[in-house]
Parts: sequence; C-alpha cells; structure tokens
Amino acid sequence: MTNKSYSVAIVGLGAMGMGAAQSCIRAGLTTYGVDLNPKALEKLKTDGAHATSQSAVDFADKLDAVLLLVVNAVQVNSVLFGENGLAAKLNKGTAVMVSSTISAQDAKAISQKLTDLGLVMLDAPVSGGAAKAALGEMTVMASGSAQAFEKLQPVLDAVAGKVYNIGEEIGLGATVKIIHQLLAGVHIAAGAEAMALAAKAGIPLNLMYDVVTNAAGNSWMFENRMKHVVEGDYSPLSMVDIFVKDLGLVNDTAKSLHFPLHLASTAYSMFTEASNAGYGKEDDSAVIKIFSGIELPKKGA
Amino acid sequence: MTNKSYSVAIVGLGAMGMGAAQSCIRAGLTTYGVDLNPKALEKLKTDGAHATSQSAVDFADKLDAVLLLVVNAVQVNSVLFGENGLAAKLNKGTAVMVSSTISAQDAKAISQKLTDLGLVMLDAPVSGGAAKAALGEMTVMASGSAQAFEKLQPVLDAVAGKVYNIGEEIGLGATVKIIHQLLAGVHIAAGAEAMALAAKAGIPLNLMYDVVTNAAGNSWMFENRMKHVVEGDYSPLSMVDIFVKDLGLVNDTAKSLHFPLHLASTAYSMFTEASNAGYGKEDDSAVIKIFSGIELPKKGA
Repeated sequence: MTNKSYSVAIVGLGAMGMGAAQSCIRAGLTTYGVDLNPKALEKLKTDGAHATSQSAVDFADKLDAVLLLVVNAVQVNSVLFGENGLAAKLNKGTAVMVSSTISAQDAKAISQKLTDLGLVMLDAPVSGGAAKAALGEMTVMASGSAQAFEKLQPVLDAVAGKVYNIGEEIGLGATVKIIHQLLAGVHIAAGAEAMALAAKAGIPLNLMYDVVTNAAGNSWMFENRMKHVVEGDYSPLSMVDIFVKDLGLVNDTAKSLHFPLHLASTAYSMFTEASNAGYGKEDDSAVIKIFSGIELPKKGA
Repeated sequence: MTNKSYSVAIVGLGAMGMGAAQSCIRAGLTTYGVDLNPKALEKLKTDGAHATSQSAVDFADKLDAVLLLVVNAVQVNSVLFGENGLAAKLNKGTAVMVSSTISAQDAKAISQKLTDLGLVMLDAPVSGGAAKAALGEMTVMASGSAQAFEKLQPVLDAVAGKVYNIGEEIGLGATVKIIHQLLAGVHIAAGAEAMALAAKAGIPLNLMYDVVTNAAGNSWMFENRMKHVVEGDYSPLSMVDIFVKDLGLVNDTAKSLHFPLHLASTAYSMFTEASNAGYGKEDDSAVIKIFSGIELPKKGA
C-alpha cells in the first residue's frame, strides 16, 4: 500500500522522530525530514525521504500534515511561530500533530494559535521507546477534533501500534502523557535505588537484574534501563535531563490541580541532583550515580 | 512422575502456600498441609494432601522437608521454636525451606538455631503472586549450602518456575527478596499516585490503565493491582499491611547498611498512612485511598 499523494513532514529526527519518519516512508507516504543536525538529514535521505532540510518552510506549501517530535514546548513554539515560523506558511487546513511531551496549558495555547491560522491540531504525545518508533508501533495518546484525527489517519496508521482517542479537548493527550511519565520516571529512579541498595548489600547486580525481571517487582523501565547499569553503559538513549523536564511537568500539572505527589516529587529531586552532579547528558539510568559509597559495574568489565 | 517416598509439609496455606502445596501434590510428593484455618486444611485434603493438621508436630518424624510460607519472622520462630515447636521434633538432617519474607538478620538467627538441632536451612523467599504459585511456577531466590539445595530439589522442582542460587550465605536470599519488595511496593504506590492524579485531572481510569499497560510506564504491579482500582474491587489478595511490613523490612535493611532510601521510605509512609486510615486489611491497591478529593470507580459500576 502506498499513498504518495499524502505528504508529511517530520520535524525533529531524534530517537523517536527518526523512527516515525522511517515508518512514514515505509508506509508509502511522501515524507519530508527536518532537523538541525545534517547527519540525521543525510540518514533519512538515504532511507528514502522525498526531501530533507533544516527548515520545514522549504516545503510548507506541499504538506498535508506536520508531525512535531522536538524536545519541548519552547522548540514546538519556535518551529511553528518563531522567526521564519512554519505555521504561517502552511496551507489552511493542514494538520499539525504535536507529539512532544508538553504541558496541557502549552498544548492549549499552541492549539489556539494554530486555529487562528486556520490549521488543525492533534494533541498527540507518544510512548514506546526508539525500538517501537522504528517499527512504526508507537503508542499514541491523542486528543483533538474528529477532523484532526481524520486528517492525520495516514500518519497514525504509519507510526502507531496503538492510538488512544482520549477526547476532543486539547490538553487531555498532554495530561495522559505527563501522568504516564510520572510512572516512567519513578520506575527508573526506583530501579536505581534498588540496584544501588543491592550493590551496597553485596548482591551481584546481574543476578539482582535477573531475579527482578522474572518476578513481580519488574517494570518496563527497570528491564530496559537497569540493563545499562548492569553493563556499565550510560551512552544516552534518553537523557537524565529529559526526566528533569518531564518530572518537572508532572509537578507543574499536580500543582495546577492542587494535588500532592509523594513519589514523583522525590524522583524529580533525584534526577535534578543527578543533573547538577554532572550526569544530565548521560542515559537516564545514570540517576543511580547520586548514590555514594557503592561500586557499580564498569563497561566491558 | 511421582515421588511418593518424599514427604514434605507446607506450613502456612495462604495464597502462596496453598498454591505451593497443590503443586507438591501434583508433582507426586507425599504432601502434608498445616494451617490454623480449618477451611484451608479441608480444601487441601480434598485436593489430595496425605494429611492435614493445625500443627506439623503430628507428622514431624515422617518428613524429608518443611516449607514455611507463614507471614513473618515471628510466625516462623513460633512454628519452629515456640511452645510445642516443630524443629525439635524433626529427624536430624531434615531440610527446612524458609520462604516467608524476613530480614537477613532473622534468617541468620533461625539458621543458627536449626543448625544446632542438626537441621538444614534454605533461605528461600519467593515471588510471583498467587497465580504463579498455583501453577508451580514461583520465582525462588535462595541461599544456602549445596546440601540444602540438594535435599530440597524435589520441592523446588514442584513449586518453582525459576530458582536463583544466590550463594551459600544465609541472609542473601532474604536480602534479594527485600530489595525486590522495595520495587514491588514503590510500584504499587506509584501506580496509586498516578491513577489518583488521573482521577483528579478528569481522565477516565480505565483509559489511563489501557494507555499505561501498552506503554513504557507499565510495571508488573501496575498491571496487576491498578486493575483492582479500575474495577473498584479491594478484596484482599495481598493486603496493605503486608507492604507496611515488607517496606518496613526494606527500611530496616537500608538502616543496617547505612544507606539512604528516597522512594522506599516515602512508599512506606504511604502504606502506613493507608493502614492507619483503616485500609490495612484491604487489597494493597487501597493505598490509593490516602488521596482525598477524588472520585474512584465503584465496584460493579
């Protein structure tokens, strides 16, 4: 099945965006790639992108849809409404799928500005990790109008294994993602706390890892991230600083709802401490390095 | 395969002990059941137990092995060394598998007393939940002598899907289990915190449950326990008070190792608060009831 008459630009070719763009190519969509990193552009061009550029403005008038997978709300706003912004260049009725993790408040503000320009937004954060993104099997938690879902159907078909329609109200998608990140972040921090305690108690960490991943204490994040600790490899797939941001959004959300967060506020402090100690650009499993007086496995040891 | 010449008594026929005993019967071992609850004894007799009693002393001299699955160290000590205690009645060389969640310190003290009586101990906590226990597929994290492992091989074959040999030193099994419980307890409490926040934000909890269980925020405990919240059913499979005990052991262990616990100390407070609020005997997912100002799903709604 191909759908070459449908054109989509993916803006932000990081771990998730690259996989999403490759999935759009595989699904036969006319796919444009946008990133500031020339290497990412080159890779996607080789993989079959119709065109790539450091700015989506170059092909704005050819697009049916834009998928934004940049890091945060500041970047979303900059791409859409900054100097030489994309939004003003898009044809009226173009659908914009905002898949970065941002606050409900930011999602609503962005939606308002897009609506004012005659554009349609889907508030559609994603999860699943780089591997699922590469397979076109991301989990998408989306809110928006029936029109937005309809216009983006070819993109959703290409990139998602599961699409949750959370409702019409922009912001619901963002909120579900943020609550999801509460769990993801606490699970990484809890994994680190448990493995650090195991190290202190003299339990071999590969054995502790095996036990947990075969028992009721397991989590998706423990299984995925504590493997990096066992291997002593903190090459960043997703960085400590991403969880400083995401758990920050969790805390902002709770504050706006006047709701107490016992665990997520603590996990936020753990990631922030790891960042301040110099591990912000390492893999998020490096949050374990806030624990002193233990010996962790070394890479290749 | 049957091994009727091998006799084992399971002491403590709760959710895990009942499943373990049924698995021993299924494996063809001559199986004795011990519990204070007459209904549990009756059930196991119907299922094919050789004999059942409120005290294992009645058949102590017939046993090759004893599997203890009572609630805590006080009960282990009472069964083995209390008034009319079992340990003094066992034949020399009988193997005692202690599978209750207890501290390393308690495990060592119990082992010393058993050794003094010429008995052999395996420090062998278990995980996997009632369903795995019923299937004979518990995860066993065990430490002890080669002799202890060898003598208990028929029991391990019958009840375990995975057996981890953590080492010779009694206490290592207990420690691994306690670190495992750190994760299990924090994951339940984090699940409760996330679902409570979702309720406050107006996200339908069944939808939040679906998203998380299909994304990277999932955990074994979230998937298993938050289903109870979605269904509004707090019938106890494992109670809030069990995690007050187990996270208490986690904190004791960390204290003895001079180690900080950011998340597990907080989770301990959450379960303790739930217990003090009157939910101690409800399912451990009832820890969500510490959050005020939200509406949770009702059973059958």
